Amino acid sequence: MFTILPIKGMIDQIDGFYCDGISAGLKANNALDLGFIYSDTLCDVEAVFTENRFQAAPLKHYLMYKKDFQTNFVLINSKNANAMTGKKGIEDINSIFSSLNHEFTNPIMSSTGVIGNPLPIQKIVEGAKSFDLKTKNAQNLSKAIMTTDSYAKTTMYEVKLEDGSSFKIGAVSKGAGMINPNLATMLCFICTDANVPKEDMKEALKVNSETTFNAISVDGDTSTNDTVLLLTNKKSNAYNKEAFFEVLRLVMHDMAMLMVADGEGAKKAVAFEVKNAATYEDAQKAAKALSNSLLVKTALFGEDPNFGRIASTIGASKIACDEEKLVVSYNNVIVYNKGELIFNDEIEQEAFKVLQNDKFKIVCDIGLGKESFTAYGCDLGYKYVEINADYRT
Amino acid sequence: MFTILPIKGMIDQIDGFYCDGISAGLKANNALDLGFIYSDTLCDVEAVFTENRFQAAPLKHYLMYKKDFQTNFVLINSKNANAMTGKKGIEDINSIFSSLNHEFTNPIMSSTGVIGNPLPIQKIVEGAKSFDLKTKNAQNLSKAIMTTDSYAKTTMYEVKLEDGSSFKIGAVSKGAGMINPNLATMLCFICTDANVPKEDMKEALKVNSETTFNAISVDGDTSTNDTVLLLTNKKSNAYNKEAFFEVLRLVMHDMAMLMVADGEGAKKAVAFEVKNAATYEDAQKAAKALSNSLLVKTALFGEDPNFGRIASTIGASKIACDEEKLVVSYNNVIVYNKGELIFNDEIEQEAFKVLQNDKFKIVCDIGLGKESFTAYGCDLGYKYVEINADYRT
Repeated sequence: MFTILPIKGMIDQIDGFYCDGISAGLKANNALDLGFIYSDTLCDVEAVFTENRFQAAPLKHYLMYKKDFQTNFVLINSKNANAMTGKKGIEDINSIFSSLNHEFTNPIMSSTGVIGNPLPIQKIVEGAKSFDLKTKNAQNLSKAIMTTDSYAKTTMYEVKLEDGSSFKIGAVSKGAGMINPNLATMLCFICTDANVPKEDMKEALKVNSETTFNAISVDGDTSTNDTVLLLTNKKSNAYNKEAFFEVLRLVMHDMAMLMVADGEGAKKAVAFEVKNAATYEDAQKAAKALSNSLLVKTALFGEDPNFGRIASTIGASKIACDEEKLVVSYNNVIVYNKGELIFNDEIEQEAFKVLQNDKFKIVCDIGLGKESFTAYGCDLGYKYVEINADYRT
Repeated sequence: MFTILPIKGMIDQIDGFYCDGISAGLKANNALDLGFIYSDTLCDVEAVFTENRFQAAPLKHYLMYKKDFQTNFVLINSKNANAMTGKKGIEDINSIFSSLNHEFTNPIMSSTGVIGNPLPIQKIVEGAKSFDLKTKNAQNLSKAIMTTDSYAKTTMYEVKLEDGSSFKIGAVSKGAGMINPNLATMLCFICTDANVPKEDMKEALKVNSETTFNAISVDGDTSTNDTVLLLTNKKSNAYNKEAFFEVLRLVMHDMAMLMVADGEGAKKAVAFEVKNAATYEDAQKAAKALSNSLLVKTALFGEDPNFGRIASTIGASKIACDEEKLVVSYNNVIVYNKGELIFNDEIEQEAFKVLQNDKFKIVCDIGLGKESFTAYGCDLGYKYVEINADYRT
């Protein structure tokens, strides 16, 4: 038995973790653009990285540390992704860490922003030298890592175990689900004082990624920098495997949902539930196809209950399916039922009402098995085009 | 030796083929919406259909004929796709053909339009009864099959062989590369009097589909109705395999390029050439990923030479690639060269000039092998969203 409580505050509430965000002159107008997470003891660390073949320099730098390394420092900059920067990108990171006035243990760097530009080392070093490592200001950190995000993204929980012990876990992240002109990436930093064994960290991150960050889509793109980092200082001495897996899932789900809702120009957050598919892979493939389909996304933007696009996308995903078994609904409004042409003005009006909400689900019952998967996406409208095309104006 | 000449005119120039388009009241304002192709002798026929698992009723109806059937009639309607219509969809087609005042041999139906509505049989039968089978008006046919197309799409060639014989081949097609609210599909009807053996018809269609219709993308969607139909009446008695394969490739390429250029709201037709990939599959995968990427498409719309998105998309396609070997260019302007950060204001200006054209290519040299593939796509802007979202206004 355990209790999971959402609590106020951010990761700086956790004993031993310090963070801040400052302006180092990377963004214009003195906006916050450089931040850190510092731990006063060494932390175990696990990460999940982008599947993009061109991993950015900070990811390569991380992967050069030997297995099961510990760390006490993460340095994060926005505005420059340090991606497609070759060997120089990695040298730049080493050069930054060796120029600081504090020696950290296996320091980690994390970057987001324009691809293909050299990192402005001087500005970053000067900024990092001004850090006060005893600051607890997660608010500033959450702002410093933003790019096209329209709001900062944080979450925080406390877990109370049966024996009276408890631990905290929280996250700060950025990502408008997708990518502005080169201002790429989703980054998520999760901190906890749970006494979690190293092998559980890895497994919990992996298991929960699939149904959270890997289940969201704004435009189907995978950046060069995507990173989820889990740091644990174990200070609480409290741990329960089941509780930890569940609260980590909640943390990652919260962050993923905030990203989808902040999808560039998005007005609607939509859950695409594919159920009763023949296999789990089929359910996943169809749900992701729906959340990625431009035709589905523009129909959602137009609040158009046109199930033809939904059905066509299911069929185009090449999963096992049969039009005589498929049922499609918007929330509880069935619009297509196993090959019967039931769609009429009345049903259209009911479906239209569902689509006018900010949040709803589209359910596709494949009727061929028992496997389900829910993907999360958003609509796509003029604002998306504006953000992504009007770069020069 | 043979000569391929583009000639004026349309498929009705070919001896023995007749066609027309009329208004049957499916579209508003007496617009043309029902057409036919009639042959005064039986034709061999081959088809390539959509890979969408939910094939529309006309496709299922076609596939019910026994192998190597011959036909003399194709009936084509727009405005209603007869898709997701279950058994009734096929019954409706049979009912239409049995109600006509002329008995055809293995008549074929082809439909495009809204998914999930029953076919207006009565209107189609009345319209088809008014056909004059001795009409040669491919112009009207080309208009009757349009949905969101902004222009009719036709092409025509004559092939002169060394022995003095010759044959003609031409096509009529529709497709704005993609799909409007349910008004889906690309359809292409190719007619020829070449004396082509049945097995060559099949092979030539298959081989050429890969580099033409299967290489274009407006939005990455696959409709329920996509059809390419090849009809040959063999009246010319002329044939040369090499010439036939090449001219069929030209016909299909012409049609594919007209579709891309007519991509909903598109202003730019772009060739995405991926060369020197390790395998053909890699080249194809990366080229298609580029032509499908929303981030690349919106950058093209914004005339933004931002190679970071190109590189990131290559990496996200998960092909074998190495940032120290990749070279990216817009036409001949190299913007990224094997990990060197060469991009500067001067190169940006040159690249920007390329992007201001209506037609250009983006070349990605993977530098790992010898295989190439070119995919064709277009930009994506406000007009696409307008066409696809503003259904109710």
